[in-house]
Amino acid sequence: MVFAREAKKINTAWLCGLAYGYPGNTVALTIMPAKQTARLLYAASEASADALYFMGMFVPDPVILMETGGKKIGVFSRLEFGRAEREATLDCLYAYEDLVERARQGSKQARPGPAELIKLLAGELGVRSFRVPHDFPAGLAAKLTRAGLDIKAVDGEFFPRREIKTGREAEAIREGNRASAAGIHAARQALARSTIKNGTLYLGRQRLTSERLRTIIRIACLEAEGLAMQVICAGGDQACDPHEVGSGPLRANELIIVDVFPRVLATGYYGDMTRTFLKGKASPAQKKLVATVRQAQKASLAKIKAGMAGKTVHGAAERVFKQAGYQTEQVDGAWQGFIHSTGHGLGLDIHEAPRVGPAPGKLKRGTVITVEPGLYYPGLGGCRIEDVVQVTADGYTLLSKAPYRWEIK
Amino acid sequence: MVFAREAKKINTAWLCGLAYGYPGNTVALTIMPAKQTARLLYAASEASADALYFMGMFVPDPVILMETGGKKIGVFSRLEFGRAEREATLDCLYAYEDLVERARQGSKQARPGPAELIKLLAGELGVRSFRVPHDFPAGLAAKLTRAGLDIKAVDGEFFPRREIKTGREAEAIREGNRASAAGIHAARQALARSTIKNGTLYLGRQRLTSERLRTIIRIACLEAEGLAMQVICAGGDQACDPHEVGSGPLRANELIIVDVFPRVLATGYYGDMTRTFLKGKASPAQKKLVATVRQAQKASLAKIKAGMAGKTVHGAAERVFKQAGYQTEQVDGAWQGFIHSTGHGLGLDIHEAPRVGPAPGKLKRGTVITVEPGLYYPGLGGCRIEDVVQVTADGYTLLSKAPYRWEIK
Repeated sequence: MVFAREAKKINTAWLCGLAYGYPGNTVALTIMPAKQTARLLYAASEASADALYFMGMFVPDPVILMETGGKKIGVFSRLEFGRAEREATLDCLYAYEDLVERARQGSKQARPGPAELIKLLAGELGVRSFRVPHDFPAGLAAKLTRAGLDIKAVDGEFFPRREIKTGREAEAIREGNRASAAGIHAARQALARSTIKNGTLYLGRQRLTSERLRTIIRIACLEAEGLAMQVICAGGDQACDPHEVGSGPLRANELIIVDVFPRVLATGYYGDMTRTFLKGKASPAQKKLVATVRQAQKASLAKIKAGMAGKTVHGAAERVFKQAGYQTEQVDGAWQGFIHSTGHGLGLDIHEAPRVGPAPGKLKRGTVITVEPGLYYPGLGGCRIEDVVQVTADGYTLLSKAPYRWEIK
Repeated sequence: MVFAREAKKINTAWLCGLAYGYPGNTVALTIMPAKQTARLLYAASEASADALYFMGMFVPDPVILMETGGKKIGVFSRLEFGRAEREATLDCLYAYEDLVERARQGSKQARPGPAELIKLLAGELGVRSFRVPHDFPAGLAAKLTRAGLDIKAVDGEFFPRREIKTGREAEAIREGNRASAAGIHAARQALARSTIKNGTLYLGRQRLTSERLRTIIRIACLEAEGLAMQVICAGGDQACDPHEVGSGPLRANELIIVDVFPRVLATGYYGDMTRTFLKGKASPAQKKLVATVRQAQKASLAKIKAGMAGKTVHGAAERVFKQAGYQTEQVDGAWQGFIHSTGHGLGLDIHEAPRVGPAPGKLKRGTVITVEPGLYYPGLGGCRIEDVVQVTADGYTLLSKAPYRWEIK
């Protein structure tokens, strides 16, 4: 995959119809020095959800993005400029090579970098102070500070409105969960087709491993237009380590956690669903575990509405577990029981605001969260059941859909 | 996918056999205050190649990583601790929840975050000054500075030794290119199976679009244990925009650029290969274009050896194009010709040091680079041919392998 070459003079300039002192053009400076501090990002939208949210287009390498006076500005190299003209949700586009040329003329620096270009743009736009996201590159922040700009890293969310999903965003997350459901369906089918020999699962003549099941799930997600970077297919005690993705042969009569969180290729929104399966025959203890987790999920769901404390939603699941006799405690140095939060925000990041756990904070209307209580007991196994909802004024809308049947003969 | 819950007291502590003032344990402080500045990272290794290089294990959320006195230290939450014990290439592990508890006791802060935990650890290890990567989060850097630590962002590569690949790393990249080759092979087969109706390609009864071809390639990569986040399948004039991934129906008698850069799932190393295909009958101009690009690639390859300037490798391709009469110039505001560098470093990042273009710098022994000249002329189409090599003392070792046949009847 090609990388942008060093700058050459380029004359394709801006799209905003505003010329910022560009030689040979009338200066029509309608973007006013912002009264509020301007925003600045420097990130690849394939890696930064904030950058993707801001520009609405995937780019593989970091780009300069600014917001000032209500205008959204982006700087694109020759490799991205044409695509940015067509796809980016920005008001003004600058050509990177053009800015480099001008920065060279101004500073006699042979190889101006992002700091010099940002300084140049800031000067022309009359901006002296920028708010940047907490994960803005520290090296660039230091250079900008040395160059006389005031850089303030925002503590917490850079775009708090990302937490509230529009109808279109909720639809994109639903699309992600269609991909999740396709993956979970494919896993169920593979388990149904599998046979048991000496307690181990086989698909055809080969062992059905976590790895093989993961590939089957990823292919199903892809066919539903979702890319699953990581997929959890963990059986038995492996599933008691909730971020363990699972490896090796899957076994009969063991709980198998299948957690599928693909990203929609077109939009970048995530789906996130979990089902727990068992191939063979479940024991009474396994049946009780799964039934209790589902009951806890329903109890949490019943609490969800705008204005409700996340703690209350989390506490509802905790109460069900306690009443059913499931303790959360440390045994031989390892935690077991309900060892994670009930849920988290979902959107352009797999984990975003809010958390739904013991921490303070109330659910807002339009927020999209996962609801995924789980229980983990080495020896017995793990169970997690996860769905995704959008919070409404008096309850929630389910954005994920897959059956809850879990015992597979 | 679950998210780490708020801290609870946890007693699983460290693995390094060293106790840093942990209550009830003898303090055996064998890690000495570093004479050189210590290193600090705060990143998710799924997102940061530096973090992955340092810890050798994928984690989805940011973790604290330090290197001081020759020891590599990591802080892991309950969700990752067990996996880190098994997989991470670190010397000392700290339990996040344990540090939170201690930071709370020390500062009476109700919810200590990464800044407080880093400060606590730095105090115990006698470190006052950290080097951080240029993309270290600016918000965290600001908090650490306010807390009295000296944070220096490194300009350029944080781990310069990442540029020189060990035998194991070269093998991992070769593995990535096996996945690339599987994708390219699947694309070739799909084009061979396709039929032409009214100038458009069909696979069975459905149009063969860029999107469909991309899915076929991704599935082939997955079956070869590689995950292709993005894949370029761009035909005709779309291919003249080198980062355009391609969309819509593919057409007969048009050049189609197929650029496949999957990441090996197990290791995180990338493959990166490009072939240009044509289904139908090529024109003399298309034939000359493809032959010249291949000739340029060979000319660049012939220059590669340790100590050679990247500029010379790039210049070799430029010379071939010039001699064959291909100009690089701007026409109607858009650049055409050879509009990008000849190559880039490849490893845990798809684009890493060095660049192989007009900029200064010499190739080092062990460096892995792509060699991918290309020509782009709207109306005629684009062609790029890309392979991957490791630089040796007197030449190179090819790490990618796929045929160069490109006309498909």
